[in-house]
Amino acid sequence: MAHILSVLVDNRPGVLARVVGLVSRRGFNIDSLSVGPTENPDLSRITMEVTGDEVALEQITKQLHKLVNVVKITNLTKVNSVKRELVLIRVDCTPEQRAEITQIADIFKAKVADVGATQLTLEVQGDDDKIEDFQRLLKPFGIREVVRTGRIAMARNIN
Amino acid sequence: MAHILSVLVDNRPGVLARVVGLVSRRGFNIDSLSVGPTENPDLSRITMEVTGDEVALEQITKQLHKLVNVVKITNLTKVNSVKRELVLIRVDCTPEQRAEITQIADIFKAKVADVGATQLTLEVQGDDDKIEDFQRLLKPFGIREVVRTGRIAMARNIN
Repeated sequence: MAHILSVLVDNRPGVLARVVGLVSRRGFNIDSLSVGPTENPDLSRITMEVTGDEVALEQITKQLHKLVNVVKITNLTKVNSVKRELVLIRVDCTPEQRAEITQIADIFKAKVADVGATQLTLEVQGDDDKIEDFQRLLKPFGIREVVRTGRIAMARNIN
Repeated sequence: MAHILSVLVDNRPGVLARVVGLVSRRGFNIDSLSVGPTENPDLSRITMEVTGDEVALEQITKQLHKLVNVVKITNLTKVNSVKRELVLIRVDCTPEQRAEITQIADIFKAKVADVGATQLTLEVQGDDDKIEDFQRLLKPFGIREVVRTGRIAMARNIN
């Protein structure tokens, strides 16, 4: 099962390496991971999607809590939350195909991020299903490169 | 100096840990990192922003190349590239403040991702400066939580 963990850590060199190392050693595959600054410059937030069973996840959470630089861990899997991901897709595109591709982009509320003579770069936001559908429709044109941010999440309606 | 490295790796457990471990051991602080699937299910792409001097960066790149599961490394710092980041911001918001906050959101092309009785969650895309400006304007209302994807990048106008 896929889990989304939000881990608040001290913004110091080596902390990310320790967190990622611990999760990997326990045999969890990290499907996606994002880390960036927070509202507090001393803290960073790691959002990661990992696949594994509940028991193993509980163990990992306990182990992570023991790391001195881990401040807080939230499991957002079962919590009603806002989930977002941003993806850049570069696709082959002749001038004749431009209209068709931008039409597909419109349906998915994707934006054109860059245009070349024979290629187009699109940016799209959404959940896994939407991004997969979008890629499926673009595939016949020739997908050259896909860069994804990994999913971030925030609990909904806390108050 | 801040560098953006795009590292294509095998999608296998432990690879991320090795890459992050190597960069950290060399004393580079990882400011942000995103990892996610690519157009090829066997490969993942790690985009990271690291701070350090050119000589050290060159050494790291060489060391990374030696890791068996690293397929390709691209330094996007000096390349003309499309850079994107997605951020979720939860801010205190009384019903009376809603109009003012959504007006600020409109200016930054931010979207309302969630509304509670006393809080609002906004999603915004952009570069560092834009996100900082947005946060600065929201600060007086009370920022409760910030989750960032970290920056992803793709070379521009390859063709």
